[in-house]
Amino acid sequence: MGYRQLTEATVVDYVASVPALAARFSSFGAIDVREVGDGNLNYVYIVTNRTAPDETVVVKQAVPFLRIAGESWPLGRQRMVFETAALRRHAELVPGMVPELFHADPEMSLIAMQNLRAHRIVRGELIAGRRLPRLADHLSTFLARTLFFTSDLHLDPAAKKAAVAASVNVELCRITEDFVFTHPYDDSASNAYPAGLRQAAIDTIQRDSELRAAVAEMKWLFMNAAEALLHGDLHTGSIMANERETYVIDPEFAFYGPMGFDVGAILANLWLAFLARGAREGDAAFRPWLTETAEAIWKGFRAKFLDLWRESDAGRDGASFVGRDLDAGASAEAFRQRFLRRLFADAIGFAGCKMMRRIVGIAKVADIAGIADPAARSRVEEQALAMGRRLVIERHRFAAIEEVSALARASASLERFPA
Amino acid sequence: MGYRQLTEATVVDYVASVPALAARFSSFGAIDVREVGDGNLNYVYIVTNRTAPDETVVVKQAVPFLRIAGESWPLGRQRMVFETAALRRHAELVPGMVPELFHADPEMSLIAMQNLRAHRIVRGELIAGRRLPRLADHLSTFLARTLFFTSDLHLDPAAKKAAVAASVNVELCRITEDFVFTHPYDDSASNAYPAGLRQAAIDTIQRDSELRAAVAEMKWLFMNAAEALLHGDLHTGSIMANERETYVIDPEFAFYGPMGFDVGAILANLWLAFLARGAREGDAAFRPWLTETAEAIWKGFRAKFLDLWRESDAGRDGASFVGRDLDAGASAEAFRQRFLRRLFADAIGFAGCKMMRRIVGIAKVADIAGIADPAARSRVEEQALAMGRRLVIERHRFAAIEEVSALARASASLERFPA
Repeated sequence: MGYRQLTEATVVDYVASVPALAARFSSFGAIDVREVGDGNLNYVYIVTNRTAPDETVVVKQAVPFLRIAGESWPLGRQRMVFETAALRRHAELVPGMVPELFHADPEMSLIAMQNLRAHRIVRGELIAGRRLPRLADHLSTFLARTLFFTSDLHLDPAAKKAAVAASVNVELCRITEDFVFTHPYDDSASNAYPAGLRQAAIDTIQRDSELRAAVAEMKWLFMNAAEALLHGDLHTGSIMANERETYVIDPEFAFYGPMGFDVGAILANLWLAFLARGAREGDAAFRPWLTETAEAIWKGFRAKFLDLWRESDAGRDGASFVGRDLDAGASAEAFRQRFLRRLFADAIGFAGCKMMRRIVGIAKVADIAGIADPAARSRVEEQALAMGRRLVIERHRFAAIEEVSALARASASLERFPA
Repeated sequence: MGYRQLTEATVVDYVASVPALAARFSSFGAIDVREVGDGNLNYVYIVTNRTAPDETVVVKQAVPFLRIAGESWPLGRQRMVFETAALRRHAELVPGMVPELFHADPEMSLIAMQNLRAHRIVRGELIAGRRLPRLADHLSTFLARTLFFTSDLHLDPAAKKAAVAASVNVELCRITEDFVFTHPYDDSASNAYPAGLRQAAIDTIQRDSELRAAVAEMKWLFMNAAEALLHGDLHTGSIMANERETYVIDPEFAFYGPMGFDVGAILANLWLAFLARGAREGDAAFRPWLTETAEAIWKGFRAKFLDLWRESDAGRDGASFVGRDLDAGASAEAFRQRFLRRLFADAIGFAGCKMMRRIVGIAKVADIAGIADPAARSRVEEQALAMGRRLVIERHRFAAIEEVSALARASASLERFPA
């Protein structure tokens, strides 16, 4: 058949032509199609039987260019291969936390999957001030399980190395390398400086060699530390949830990278939401819930990751990553504690990069971009730059997640940055 | 044809049957064959025309098992693929520092190459107390060029990632993971404790959780930091030299790993030679030449690596790994300095692991194993454990290579370790 780009007009015929999808519909007489791809890369169609709303699938198709930029920016459709593989791996590792995959068509660069009708994008929920009581528990589980089980702490070296070689995601990694780790700090033409953001604030991340060298260290880690199969784009727009359930979607950026990158992505977006909250009306108690949630995610991740690790080592007849046990587990435990300290510093550094790039880079977050009052928005933007900057430079100095919460609160009280 | 294992009796027929090799011989009437594979893995034949000694080739063939252990230890012949690829890459990057490749036969897991008749294995030269005046200059060039040009500092990300995926050397990496980073510290049955080495000394590396956790951190880096195409086994037995030239041979362990691993391998073997010297007669001035050579290799490597980096960045129209230049190069230079500090700590940590494993692990170094007086040998062994241990644990504390030379001298004065 070959590849052809679907449209709202042709997607139903496609669905009807695939037995595994057609079987989900009692009839194709009254089908609603909605294109909802608000992302920058792909087309996403929700296909629903109007007369039986449970009969519904999501069809996601990659096009051979960057959607946000248009056909002038070619982008390989191969990204759908990585998304499909990651969805399958995540379904094994965190069942019930990724949409069910109904059908994958590599030739069409297309997948069809469960429509998460009962769940909403977490970013929107946070903007609306709605608590998600299970979010921290679920996300810490997601992080602990996906990162532990795809790493050398669990896998045989041969299986790990084969997984690394199978996950070389050149094009989407390049997007991150450029738009998270390079362009925001080098005054690239691709940047989008918000109106009202003072040059003095921009200069704090573009004219400071200490900051730029520290960001380059994070970029080096991103490009070289093949520790675990990452989601690769784990912001609050890649998570759907309700009060009971949490789903992680859109893993097209998946590749083998540093564990701290996924952890930092979630934390950064919660801290951005926290800062943005200062410019929003409503429930005052919601704001601390955001830093508390970041704390709970880190602490939950840390505890669950360590539990998985200890449990896994216990099943290895005394032999762990450090080797045979000769001291009642003291060496293995000493390594675990050092490992988590280093991972914490990595996560904080990556979080800092992700916060800064959301202010001056091409891709914004609605939490901040949607603040109506220009002066209030600029203030939050400067706070985000101030906090992100310190996270990257001082990433080794934080001994506990509560210290980062304190920094978030201190940053939220800044009127201008630099003062 | 398929694979068949050559012997001294059949290697000449093979050479005569390959036009590219046969053409190097004026006749096959008086051929000498010598099997000289003193390594642990392969068979190496020197094939020479007795009547015209310039007509000579080295034939190296991998067998499907670990030679040192016998057919009961299977080892894929694929390692010759990695050796061939690395020899070719090194020939491009450091011409004149690797043997010329005459012929590669992947089906036979065999290569034929230049016979380095005018050069000797460096380990033997150091044991004999012979200075190699160009060694530091050559090796620092080898390290700087092979590590820089295969990294993200030089390559386009797509080319780098493709090179990583093409260099997944599972089996030989596993040998290093096991025999350098695990077994020496976990009292493995594969260890070979030298007669006379006190249990108290062995305990300093097997019953110390701080040391074992630090070694595990180095193992993690080895397995996860895909920074550059490494030689992978760069000890003084993998280097042949004379007063004018230096050749690096046997890159079958080549893979994408942390730059500090190759740097640390050379340094470790010079420091082992330095300690061994205390138990040998002869030229007293030769001993400081060994630490001076280690200093010159690190300093030369550092300077040459930085020169390549600055030169490369200068050709990129102001854009480097850190991004576009906005501050007359200050950010790029700050990153370079931090990068080299981190690389120095990595190299020292890897050197420490390599020193310790040569004492208690299966593979010894002749510098020490060949010391005739048992008490003197044990003293040197304990000194090597003491120094290696401190290098790994304190790798971040060394600000300059001279401090490591001072530690080597201090270690050389230890009568017993622990005291």
